[in-house]
Amino acid sequence: MSQHFASDNYAGICPEALSALLEANAGHAPAYGDDDWTRRVADRMRSVFETDCDVYFVFNGTAANSLALASMCQSYHSVICHELAHVATDECGAPEFFSNGAKLLPTSSEASRLKPEDVTRLVEKRNDIHYPKPKVVTLTQATELGTLYRPEAIAAVSQRARHHGLKVHMDGARFANAVAALGVAPADITWRAGVDVLCFGGTKMGLPVGEAVVFFDRELSEDFAWRCKQAGQLASKMRYLAAPWLGMLQDDVWLRHAAHANAMAQRLSRGLVALGLRLIAPTEANGVFVDMPLALEEALRGRGWRFYNFIGGAARLMCAWDMQPETVDRFLVDVKELAASMGI
Amino acid sequence: MSQHFASDNYAGICPEALSALLEANAGHAPAYGDDDWTRRVADRMRSVFETDCDVYFVFNGTAANSLALASMCQSYHSVICHELAHVATDECGAPEFFSNGAKLLPTSSEASRLKPEDVTRLVEKRNDIHYPKPKVVTLTQATELGTLYRPEAIAAVSQRARHHGLKVHMDGARFANAVAALGVAPADITWRAGVDVLCFGGTKMGLPVGEAVVFFDRELSEDFAWRCKQAGQLASKMRYLAAPWLGMLQDDVWLRHAAHANAMAQRLSRGLVALGLRLIAPTEANGVFVDMPLALEEALRGRGWRFYNFIGGAARLMCAWDMQPETVDRFLVDVKELAASMGI
Amino acid sequence: MSQHFASDNYAGICPEALSALLEANAGHAPAYGDDDWTRRVADRMRSVFETDCDVYFVFNGTAANSLALASMCQSYHSVICHELAHVATDECGAPEFFSNGAKLLPTSSEASRLKPEDVTRLVEKRNDIHYPKPKVVTLTQATELGTLYRPEAIAAVSQRARHHGLKVHMDGARFANAVAALGVAPADITWRAGVDVLCFGGTKMGLPVGEAVVFFDRELSEDFAWRCKQAGQLASKMRYLAAPWLGMLQDDVWLRHAAHANAMAQRLSRGLVALGLRLIAPTEANGVFVDMPLALEEALRGRGWRFYNFIGGAARLMCAWDMQPETVDRFLVDVKELAASMGI
Amino acid sequence: MSQHFASDNYAGICPEALSALLEANAGHAPAYGDDDWTRRVADRMRSVFETDCDVYFVFNGTAANSLALASMCQSYHSVICHELAHVATDECGAPEFFSNGAKLLPTSSEASRLKPEDVTRLVEKRNDIHYPKPKVVTLTQATELGTLYRPEAIAAVSQRARHHGLKVHMDGARFANAVAALGVAPADITWRAGVDVLCFGGTKMGLPVGEAVVFFDRELSEDFAWRCKQAGQLASKMRYLAAPWLGMLQDDVWLRHAAHANAMAQRLSRGLVALGLRLIAPTEANGVFVDMPLALEEALRGRGWRFYNFIGGAARLMCAWDMQPETVDRFLVDVKELAASMGI
Repeated sequence: MSQHFASDNYAGICPEALSALLEANAGHAPAYGDDDWTRRVADRMRSVFETDCDVYFVFNGTAANSLALASMCQSYHSVICHELAHVATDECGAPEFFSNGAKLLPTSSEASRLKPEDVTRLVEKRNDIHYPKPKVVTLTQATELGTLYRPEAIAAVSQRARHHGLKVHMDGARFANAVAALGVAPADITWRAGVDVLCFGGTKMGLPVGEAVVFFDRELSEDFAWRCKQAGQLASKMRYLAAPWLGMLQDDVWLRHAAHANAMAQRLSRGLVALGLRLIAPTEANGVFVDMPLALEEALRGRGWRFYNFIGGAARLMCAWDMQPETVDRFLVDVKELAASMGI
Repeated sequence: MSQHFASDNYAGICPEALSALLEANAGHAPAYGDDDWTRRVADRMRSVFETDCDVYFVFNGTAANSLALASMCQSYHSVICHELAHVATDECGAPEFFSNGAKLLPTSSEASRLKPEDVTRLVEKRNDIHYPKPKVVTLTQATELGTLYRPEAIAAVSQRARHHGLKVHMDGARFANAVAALGVAPADITWRAGVDVLCFGGTKMGLPVGEAVVFFDRELSEDFAWRCKQAGQLASKMRYLAAPWLGMLQDDVWLRHAAHANAMAQRLSRGLVALGLRLIAPTEANGVFVDMPLALEEALRGRGWRFYNFIGGAARLMCAWDMQPETVDRFLVDVKELAASMGI
Repeated sequence: MSQHFASDNYAGICPEALSALLEANAGHAPAYGDDDWTRRVADRMRSVFETDCDVYFVFNGTAANSLALASMCQSYHSVICHELAHVATDECGAPEFFSNGAKLLPTSSEASRLKPEDVTRLVEKRNDIHYPKPKVVTLTQATELGTLYRPEAIAAVSQRARHHGLKVHMDGARFANAVAALGVAPADITWRAGVDVLCFGGTKMGLPVGEAVVFFDRELSEDFAWRCKQAGQLASKMRYLAAPWLGMLQDDVWLRHAAHANAMAQRLSRGLVALGLRLIAPTEANGVFVDMPLALEEALRGRGWRFYNFIGGAARLMCAWDMQPETVDRFLVDVKELAASMGI
Repeated sequence: MSQHFASDNYAGICPEALSALLEANAGHAPAYGDDDWTRRVADRMRSVFETDCDVYFVFNGTAANSLALASMCQSYHSVICHELAHVATDECGAPEFFSNGAKLLPTSSEASRLKPEDVTRLVEKRNDIHYPKPKVVTLTQATELGTLYRPEAIAAVSQRARHHGLKVHMDGARFANAVAALGVAPADITWRAGVDVLCFGGTKMGLPVGEAVVFFDRELSEDFAWRCKQAGQLASKMRYLAAPWLGMLQDDVWLRHAAHANAMAQRLSRGLVALGLRLIAPTEANGVFVDMPLALEEALRGRGWRFYNFIGGAARLMCAWDMQPETVDRFLVDVKELAASMGI
């Protein structure tokens, strides 16, 4: 099947992850994470983050976010998030389900980035017992609009959160793209900036399945293994979740792939702007969000391209780790031709 | 790592599943199950079961069982099960969690097999509103004690369940072993015998990850896709869960592997009996449950063997799809030597 | 303590309810609703509603709404409501808790009244499995803004809901005020207009504690007694919840008290308008919502009056069943004096 | 209706509670516990317990127990209890519901009293992540078998619990009967003996509705007000829950009523033993558990007596605060006559 911009999870397993998976497929191994691959990748993770964090592997991003949030709040608490956050828009109420009722308090601010004042406003809006009490702030890095938080922006939100007694969660479904684009150490945009728990995305990065939940505040991970097990998130053949991470995290493979995806997004973004289209958000990671007449979108789909329409009539174009420059260029040619033929 | 009898999930991916997985790793594919592999394996499943069932793929057996049970009852209902059932002993309260509180009503009957009279007894024990109302019976096939239900035994329980207004769930973590051992059609021990929902185990059969939830009573699967999504059980790169099933289900690969595992269990079982040991349950599928002095167990572990001690002081010895006769024989030699040296 | 406009639940038990409660306090009575008072009031309710409905008594409105909604949807479903609905703003996430995660989909429309087009818009906004599926519409009668739905307005919403496969719930915390103000039969604004379940408010009407959940669609009440019990909402000495309803429902006591409260709201409303203040919603039931400078609100509180500030800077002034005309008039005098002294 | 032995909740409101309720029914009062009665009774409770505990009022015992337990554990934890405990046998899965899945680990020991060794055995039985981790021990005082824990027996269990890192909960549905019978200070069988949270029963003691949750370990009550609100357990007209407690707690009214109930149970117990019947547990509080042929039970019911059959074929005979000696004596006469006529 040809390449698409619909989602970075349309892409397959990257070669390094696959090769680690195949290598792990030798003979018997203890189940439920009591194997060498799992131990090694957890250690590797601690070295990537330069700190003694607790690491757990779960099956997907919805579970990672929901279990992490549930470990940070009770059912009568609330979670401050951006209104475009994946937890709010695309997890079918999973955060509410896993926490048994915690409420999301969405806010809208520019470029899908939460600001300290959003936190304060929502904390101060209600503080009576008739409304869930704010307990967590969740940030997405890179955001659902393809933008990034700079380390100091994260630190500012975290500081404010702490001031109000809240914990800080980061949805890092595209964490690799953020680290690669910002050129910072992973620690700089996580625990050094006040993040308590990171959901580190593996699937979009090139794994077959699986995300890591990384606890920098290790008190929050008390009995988290039981939480995962009860929630149906403990893999019996854990080595197939763990080993691919090893392939990914060695020699900065993950960052090279992410940098490539980011570069493809830049190529696409520049191309679209050159064709006179307007971005609805700056292209900072691996997604391009561009204002596009619905008719043009339809015409592109007519030529076989798959991509999502975003809130408010923009096209969302995601570049995966395997996006080829030729694919980008073919897409741009199609846009150009169709736009011309439609008089756009 | 050498082979073990600890669990059939110590084994890796079988060649046919792996090759289907690798074949699926080509280019882009739509996410969340909207791909060809998923469609094809669901169709294949319908042909395996000779009926128009609904099929969903989830990550593991705990999730499969819990979501299936939750679709069959509400929080104030109860589930009749054998006291050795995996849902009762090894899922860390997942059935209670996913159903938001449904109670398990365990019963003990011979060879880990529920009987019609167990159902009636538990249904009639309490029928006031101060106790959860029975709504489902769950059977495990093959059972946690390595025994099997014959088609007519399942039908008898199902009939009784229906009589009391209950639904019937089957935990088929080792369904393949059961079908191979009984030499029946899959339909004969499921919907034809009154089973409403089957959790068809993939992992122990030789997949890397994933189980199928098969609804024969299709009214029960209403909105089940939403349930899976909310519960963190919808794989984005679904093809990696689905494709390996294709490799498994074609040309009866799954049954050949299961038959081999069963044969290895027979070889082991016969060998142990020949050494004078006593089985605590007949060896009917791929597990051998044998009375063994703890000292002998320890001595075997001292020689590097891994296996679990079962309730009441027996050894549980599971044979996976890849168990080699040489492994079985080496184990028997070690048992013989150690038993002799210990004067057993 | 003097009278206030803060909430209709600041008022005590009305004489007729109290006298029925005292009458019920004689000797022993079977527990958990198996008593005569409970049977009689359920029968009386069926006669009030002119239909064979199922009736359950629970402790408060939050529980009534949450349990009713939970009986109408699963955790992965959603409930369409007005953004000012009590379920959304004042129940601390109880609907999410009791349903184990169902999402509220709030909409804003004029005068706190949902319209058919709101239902359609929210149903059509998302229909993918990544977002909770709409399953229920909830209406509040009288609304949280003191307005009313006419029978035909309810019927229009219900019809639309049915068209989309949704059920209809009514939060009737102030149902009595609505019936009294509209001068209709209770059936006209409930089942005849398509309402499936009504939460009939007792506390604000003059009871000490307790609300009734009235199922017109009796399929929805299957095993509801178990649901109540499990949720901690089954009173052991049920007679003290039930008997007061008897006092209330005989000889239209409930409607006389509600009509009085409504009349007091009219008196207050007219008086405030005469003083030049502007209502933010028409006064149709027992609440007056009036634009009032915060300074004036504070000054009134300085004179000992208690009332809530409503979203957007209006005062919410509720009249209970026992509101005396003198209280209203004294309040108006204070408003007049303070406004004058403040040059408003 | 005549008096019965079915349950102590068949009795009505005692005069002192009623008179406090009526006194509280004067004019308006702030809602949701922000009233004087609630404050006064919480203060009174602190003086009764001679410590600075946190006190919350909820509607019934099922809710009190479930919310208290939920504040002490997470969904993947377990609660050690006696198999006859009300939480296990008569709350319809409420503890599992409110905690979103915590498992009860029942044990059977003599006279319905848990022992330190039960705690250790259950803690040590499983400690892997496939089984819920023990986190709380719950004791019932007086027990469901009408027996009592002496202060040192509670302290022994608490100490063991603490040793294993568990918290201690006490279900005190009949706490008054226990205090009255033991002649100890309330503190002696609660916090001084290591109890962290007590559910102090009001209903069976003579209130119309309502129980108190008393936190001696005040860290456990963090945000408990939110928990109650979300769980539908915050009364709007709280004064009607609170005020009756005031009537009860002044001048040791609660202990006098409880002592009377206990004395009636003694009278009944002695009478039954004198008639040759055998107790299945010593009569230590207000319940008598006596072996009784089913035919005799039926014959007694034929004469209009109501009482429950207990597990294993004994009659459970509860004496409420209002039980009259004449009722006891009439019952004994009926037993004597019927037994004689039946040749027992």
